[in-house]
Amino acid sequence: MTKRVITSIDVARLAGVSQSAVSRAFSTTASISPATREKVFKAAEALNYKPNRIPSIMLTGRSGMIGIIVGGLRNPLYGSALEQLSAGIREAGFQVLLVQVMDTVTLEMALDTLAGYRVDALITALAIGSEDTAAALSALNIPVICFNSALIGPGISSVRSNNFDSGRRVAALMQEWGVERPYWLAGPVVNAASRARRAGFLEGWGAKKLSVTELQGDDHYDSAFSAVSEALRAGHRPDGLFCSNDLMGCGALDALKDTGGMSCPEDVVVVGYDNIPQAAWHSYQLSSFDQRPDALVAASLDILARSLSAPDERLSETHVIEADLVLRRSTSRTLAP
Amino acid sequence: MTKRVITSIDVARLAGVSQSAVSRAFSTTASISPATREKVFKAAEALNYKPNRIPSIMLTGRSGMIGIIVGGLRNPLYGSALEQLSAGIREAGFQVLLVQVMDTVTLEMALDTLAGYRVDALITALAIGSEDTAAALSALNIPVICFNSALIGPGISSVRSNNFDSGRRVAALMQEWGVERPYWLAGPVVNAASRARRAGFLEGWGAKKLSVTELQGDDHYDSAFSAVSEALRAGHRPDGLFCSNDLMGCGALDALKDTGGMSCPEDVVVVGYDNIPQAAWHSYQLSSFDQRPDALVAASLDILARSLSAPDERLSETHVIEADLVLRRSTSRTLAP
Repeated sequence: MTKRVITSIDVARLAGVSQSAVSRAFSTTASISPATREKVFKAAEALNYKPNRIPSIMLTGRSGMIGIIVGGLRNPLYGSALEQLSAGIREAGFQVLLVQVMDTVTLEMALDTLAGYRVDALITALAIGSEDTAAALSALNIPVICFNSALIGPGISSVRSNNFDSGRRVAALMQEWGVERPYWLAGPVVNAASRARRAGFLEGWGAKKLSVTELQGDDHYDSAFSAVSEALRAGHRPDGLFCSNDLMGCGALDALKDTGGMSCPEDVVVVGYDNIPQAAWHSYQLSSFDQRPDALVAASLDILARSLSAPDERLSETHVIEADLVLRRSTSRTLAP
Repeated sequence: MTKRVITSIDVARLAGVSQSAVSRAFSTTASISPATREKVFKAAEALNYKPNRIPSIMLTGRSGMIGIIVGGLRNPLYGSALEQLSAGIREAGFQVLLVQVMDTVTLEMALDTLAGYRVDALITALAIGSEDTAAALSALNIPVICFNSALIGPGISSVRSNNFDSGRRVAALMQEWGVERPYWLAGPVVNAASRARRAGFLEGWGAKKLSVTELQGDDHYDSAFSAVSEALRAGHRPDGLFCSNDLMGCGALDALKDTGGMSCPEDVVVVGYDNIPQAAWHSYQLSSFDQRPDALVAASLDILARSLSAPDERLSETHVIEADLVLRRSTSRTLAP
């Protein structure tokens, strides 16, 4: 059994044609007679030859790969968005070079790597977002799309949910529902989307001259269960709680029930963000903002297509997708008397 | 503003050295004086030059990329495993080319693509697993690791959980707990792991001459909620239920409670598989098999390293990782009287 890779030379030999004819047979633009192409394809199949993409990357400087940078996939929202993004990228005829980064240091290394592989464009789905990051992304000189974050710079576009407005909307709704002791459960400080949701929520309550009590989580279930349980044991009694994401919303609901013995929505209304599958599970029925990953992904792919067809323009657009509030049992409270 | 990519020629010009000196400066093996390397690095930094990986792929036929084929990322287990796999691959100095496939047709296209990019090895995390698939994977002539499936062939290794034994173990435990009406909730028929869990469970009950009632799900929460609710409305009263995965286990628990008005573990014990974070959430507390993704990933990376260092051996190994049964409230029943 042979271990070496089958090359176009082997195919040319078996087909009785030149090596250049093999290359042309596998190109969609080169000219070649149907009979010769047929001979090449037969030989290629017999040898199980796979055309090599690398020489064409050398010649064109375009790899046909889109780099995707993700920070973590444990939140079901990101798993699902990555699934849709990579399906869309593949449909557009590109491949996905996936890089996972944990902090700004590994981000810089990742950028070097992606540049080394000559990725044609980059999609980042990171919460990280400083001005330094934006500068480093711009310097790559390829189209960059920030998925669900808000970096700005030449060649950088961003597609995100209307986090601030959503926060303000929750405040207004809670006021209609008669909430008087509003609470906010935050994600990590580095999470820009979480900060925007908070700012909108606080502004919405500021108009009412009611202050919001703030709890700190880390975007995961356990942190929410602990933070809310601790607050309840310290005597807090929220009657409205806005959680920066649904993983924390589920943890908060369990803490309110198990630690606080509180009923939801009778004693307290809870709203989350992301509309992950678990929000709809019968044990939670958590009202939540659906960021419409389909729309976020579609907008990203649209910018990608336009950026790639006109790289000199260094496209820099911001698309804000309005989130849908999906109301469930956790807020099924009739309007205040 | 320049839009073109900075090349080694630009760096050579600014540093006042030859283009070959630039290549040698960025190679870890080539010989070059420290002073020249310093000059090159300074010029490279000034120009924001990223060394091109493509020429070296041309020369060596090795891309430094590992292809990962996934079928879907909505199950939190796969998001978490992909996160760990890609971190490990990166630590080993490789990049991840991610391909998402939905069926055997897209799988064949994916294999052509991956071969075209000259990936050095391939990890598949697919439930799909026919003999044709195995043949196509073998024909790639690169190391292939099947993550959590059981394909066999030259150059193909597999790393998976001991699904059959786990199924038998659940049957034995349920017998100790006094279960008399055992139920099995299956994943889709194409899921080989699900079939193995079922086979073990049925064999375990066969010895007792008790037959198992089988329900059909599709690995997701909603399918389990529907299948179990329907069975309950048709008069079924399981006192032991083994679910092929945790997403379905959570759906089953909600159906038993909400549709059947049954208490768990008093009326019925439930066991799942995967030990996803949701299994530990307070509303579920589902007993489950932890497949130890750390161990699965570590075994995969170990095979990968050995395969890459001796490609001529066409390594073909099977590693079965024993799953840990994590007992929680859903089975906290004292032994039968």
